[in-house]
Amino acid sequence: MRKEPFVTSASFVLKGIVPPVATPFTESHDIDIPSLERLIDFQIDAGVHGLFMLGSTSETATLTFAKRVRILETAARKAKGRVPLMAGTMDMATERVIEHARAAKDAGMDGLVVTAPYYIRPSQSEIIEHFRAIREAVGLPIVAYDIPGAVQTKLTRETVWTLADEGTIVGIKDSSGDEANFRGLLIEAQSRPHFSVMTGSELIIDSLLIAGATGSVPGIANVDPHGFVKIYDAVQAGDYETAKSEQDRLYKLFAITRCGDLARMGWTASALGGFKTAMMLRGMIATNVMGRPMTRLNDAEVAKVRSILVEGGLLDA
Amino acid sequence: MRKEPFVTSASFVLKGIVPPVATPFTESHDIDIPSLERLIDFQIDAGVHGLFMLGSTSETATLTFAKRVRILETAARKAKGRVPLMAGTMDMATERVIEHARAAKDAGMDGLVVTAPYYIRPSQSEIIEHFRAIREAVGLPIVAYDIPGAVQTKLTRETVWTLADEGTIVGIKDSSGDEANFRGLLIEAQSRPHFSVMTGSELIIDSLLIAGATGSVPGIANVDPHGFVKIYDAVQAGDYETAKSEQDRLYKLFAITRCGDLARMGWTASALGGFKTAMMLRGMIATNVMGRPMTRLNDAEVAKVRSILVEGGLLDA
Amino acid sequence: MRKEPFVTSASFVLKGIVPPVATPFTESHDIDIPSLERLIDFQIDAGVHGLFMLGSTSETATLTFAKRVRILETAARKAKGRVPLMAGTMDMATERVIEHARAAKDAGMDGLVVTAPYYIRPSQSEIIEHFRAIREAVGLPIVAYDIPGAVQTKLTRETVWTLADEGTIVGIKDSSGDEANFRGLLIEAQSRPHFSVMTGSELIIDSLLIAGATGSVPGIANVDPHGFVKIYDAVQAGDYETAKSEQDRLYKLFAITRCGDLARMGWTASALGGFKTAMMLRGMIATNVMGRPMTRLNDAEVAKVRSILVEGGLLDA
Amino acid sequence: MRKEPFVTSASFVLKGIVPPVATPFTESHDIDIPSLERLIDFQIDAGVHGLFMLGSTSETATLTFAKRVRILETAARKAKGRVPLMAGTMDMATERVIEHARAAKDAGMDGLVVTAPYYIRPSQSEIIEHFRAIREAVGLPIVAYDIPGAVQTKLTRETVWTLADEGTIVGIKDSSGDEANFRGLLIEAQSRPHFSVMTGSELIIDSLLIAGATGSVPGIANVDPHGFVKIYDAVQAGDYETAKSEQDRLYKLFAITRCGDLARMGWTASALGGFKTAMMLRGMIATNVMGRPMTRLNDAEVAKVRSILVEGGLLDA
Repeated sequence: MRKEPFVTSASFVLKGIVPPVATPFTESHDIDIPSLERLIDFQIDAGVHGLFMLGSTSETATLTFAKRVRILETAARKAKGRVPLMAGTMDMATERVIEHARAAKDAGMDGLVVTAPYYIRPSQSEIIEHFRAIREAVGLPIVAYDIPGAVQTKLTRETVWTLADEGTIVGIKDSSGDEANFRGLLIEAQSRPHFSVMTGSELIIDSLLIAGATGSVPGIANVDPHGFVKIYDAVQAGDYETAKSEQDRLYKLFAITRCGDLARMGWTASALGGFKTAMMLRGMIATNVMGRPMTRLNDAEVAKVRSILVEGGLLDA
Repeated sequence: MRKEPFVTSASFVLKGIVPPVATPFTESHDIDIPSLERLIDFQIDAGVHGLFMLGSTSETATLTFAKRVRILETAARKAKGRVPLMAGTMDMATERVIEHARAAKDAGMDGLVVTAPYYIRPSQSEIIEHFRAIREAVGLPIVAYDIPGAVQTKLTRETVWTLADEGTIVGIKDSSGDEANFRGLLIEAQSRPHFSVMTGSELIIDSLLIAGATGSVPGIANVDPHGFVKIYDAVQAGDYETAKSEQDRLYKLFAITRCGDLARMGWTASALGGFKTAMMLRGMIATNVMGRPMTRLNDAEVAKVRSILVEGGLLDA
Repeated sequence: MRKEPFVTSASFVLKGIVPPVATPFTESHDIDIPSLERLIDFQIDAGVHGLFMLGSTSETATLTFAKRVRILETAARKAKGRVPLMAGTMDMATERVIEHARAAKDAGMDGLVVTAPYYIRPSQSEIIEHFRAIREAVGLPIVAYDIPGAVQTKLTRETVWTLADEGTIVGIKDSSGDEANFRGLLIEAQSRPHFSVMTGSELIIDSLLIAGATGSVPGIANVDPHGFVKIYDAVQAGDYETAKSEQDRLYKLFAITRCGDLARMGWTASALGGFKTAMMLRGMIATNVMGRPMTRLNDAEVAKVRSILVEGGLLDA
Repeated sequence: MRKEPFVTSASFVLKGIVPPVATPFTESHDIDIPSLERLIDFQIDAGVHGLFMLGSTSETATLTFAKRVRILETAARKAKGRVPLMAGTMDMATERVIEHARAAKDAGMDGLVVTAPYYIRPSQSEIIEHFRAIREAVGLPIVAYDIPGAVQTKLTRETVWTLADEGTIVGIKDSSGDEANFRGLLIEAQSRPHFSVMTGSELIIDSLLIAGATGSVPGIANVDPHGFVKIYDAVQAGDYETAKSEQDRLYKLFAITRCGDLARMGWTASALGGFKTAMMLRGMIATNVMGRPMTRLNDAEVAKVRSILVEGGLLDA
């Protein structure tokens, strides 16, 4: 079932640093639109190469359909034309994902990011049918999102190439943590020059870019996009030492994800809450409120994040 | 935060055999309302003690919001007042579950079945907040649904009793497969006589009822509700031999869940597809179409289900 | 490869309560032979139907070959002829297990308990070859030991029946916690009357015996063998109420496994250390020293075990 | 408990390419000493920087104590003084590992490789006690071996630095596949210049060396040590392009691990059997016999390995 090339995808190449944009909330759990707009500007001004709205870092799992639409509309209004805009469509199965995908298209997104179905524990062939059905129904370029930690099922390389070679997907975002398999994607993508192989890693992006990754979707880029753009540019320029020392700096910054008390909250809340707290302290967003039922960092935990930012030179003491 | 007793729950005791009602589809993936109505009548006529609409067996993960509402409205119209009606609210996080819960209340359901949040990998205290928020927002009796195979997180006994003793939940449906922990629930429930301890097991219901379980939610009861009602009645009457031999018979019937080719489909599709195929062959529903992207059993697989039914005396040769 | 029936196994039927005998240590980590002898007498006097030396509860993984031999020789000297004696042979692969099995035969054991190989993550067919090779080499009756929590691989029912029907194994001890699968073993064993289907469960033995289990290998029987013999006898007599209330009592006693601080020790050390501490407090053994590197319960933890024993009526206040 | 520096470790720095040497067997499962000697020469002649005897690749889990000793004695006799010799001590708990460690010292090994205990599922503090006890008892330099896929428990970075900073271990071999955590080890090792941070990776060694790894322990180096030495030398020389293209070549060669039929054998047998078959085809060893109960590659599977070698230029067609 080889497809005609997408008109939209003809000009669409996902590459570089594409942060999964966090979702700022007001104290009453509404979307904080002014903060979101400020954040989008901050990211684009820092030189990122695209924006991924409604990713895992965006706490998309906690958002109602209506809230998702508001975020996409805000992104389109604010950023459209400046950088490519990707929309996550996270949901359990095909028909529900198609509803999200249609809303993303209506809102003007440039492409979709789609995971394997979950809750139902699908086979690889059911995953393939899932992607095909979404592509048929909506017609936007699709980047497959491999995140077995959240959805329980891994996209095998066979599945990826089946979908890529028939034209169903234009790239992959790999958040599996399986870097040996990722290298296999990179090697096998050498004969597929238009296919984007993006990593979700935040901690070894230099290595993965040097090995040939097309780009990265680092959650912590919400806090410090300049650092990731610097890594990307350094690798492009062959300056691996700069890339490495910048990655080492950002690795240490990642300590902000470990400030939450895991007796109170899950790892996800601690990590994403660390991002939001750092963004709040840096003035990018107004609160560190989390999507329900995730727990917000308390004063003591905020103080820990603050001291990491100060130590890292991102905040005055 | 002890709650006033619910008016609704005052008369609400979930017990006995409460099948998770399958969702019949037409060839074009619409809800097959006549089949659903026939199935509801069949179950009630068989003597079941309640119906659980929108369970895992109902392929709820594949259903759009609109389809879920149609199913609940059909159940209310057809069954209301004859048996208690429970509605599953499966979704990833609090606000989305509240939307489903409100629709269930509007449709006239008698109670809700709520899992832990998923995708976000919550802590137990986040799970507790999740249940509290839903109860505050909607006010229907809630049965907690422990299904770590689908949602990755287990409800600990501490979480269950925190929620039960403050009045947030009125029962639990345990589909964890951890029968040693389930016995702990039963022992600790001896001092909580109004709390329902239901098992999702299909294979050892006799043992769990003898040990004190309030009832069962067996998916395969869609195919043969009479058998499960017979087990329940036998245990109530102290006739354990009958219960055991009936359970042994139904254990063998469970072979219909293993007819799907796992190279083509996931275990979920094979199991639920086995149920639907058997129901189709027995004339209860019109097709064995599955919610997308799950794979439908093909002719060879249907033939395997048929021969199991014939061997089990549920179908003429 | 159907085998001639074993002379030894002709008279060998493993059934009833067969405790996995704990290994008492002196303060200097030697085997405490007098305590071991006292423990063996205590168990046999309580009416147990066999003894399983060198089980998981015996901390066999921590024992050198020489220490294992001393334990087997002590058991043979003390118990031989009074009850059947089984010997665990826990090790990673075939040739090493054969060495343990030969030592067990030399020491006069009546049968072997053999797990799947580990570290090497075998296939089911490699597991089958493993059992066949041990049986060929040593010629004692073998009970297969399904304990995936320790060895990572589960024995499938197909594997069990392949080995049983060709005469390689005479029974199974199931410590998998998968009670639905265990029921399948029981149903399929109905046509194999000489095959022992033993459970390793300590928490729902009444249910499993009622469902047809041949017997049980409960670790906590080291502390209170009389209780388990009482359950077994009650089920044999059809007095399920007594069996249930006795199991409920022993379920609560199992709290002694949760007294260790998991920041200091693993769950295994906490559980087995709880057993040993209770045995020490009841005067059966001299110390609660653990096999290295497992951590011994400290004074505060011993006090917790003591109060559970007092509450349970097993120790005077 | 800071230790005096080891005399032995003063001159001991583990770095570079240190293959885990395969164990050649005769048709009757004896150690094939001539093949082992030939293999050792082949490796040293290829320029490897050390040899790791009795690693996971050596099928150590299948070897009796006596066979392990023969292998170590052969290695000492053949290689002593030419390259550092490390000995694996794989076993379940402390006293058993000490027995292996003493034998290694007696055989003249230069250092030990020690995993976490297994079967008993230890805590991190029990793991720490395990390493301390071995070091106290034997006094050889210890490299910690992190291989959670085989032993179920991961060595945390906290555990590693506790052991390193007190002088208990001199390095780590990381076969966990968690490359983000490995980067953390590398960053934190920047202030510990004498600590070896080795990777067990075979598939992305170039990236890990560029990121600062001290060296690598690649199983497939048994088949093609020259390739790995070339990667190491290229990275040392700053020639990352050569390292990358050589790694890409060896990645493709890794297809020899996927020739075994997983319906017959486990992944371990397929992988290690692929290595041994390739070594046999290249004339380094006499047979592809595996340690029991692992399954040997059959003729059809050998043919697959052969064609991969031919395609990779390692064998004439």
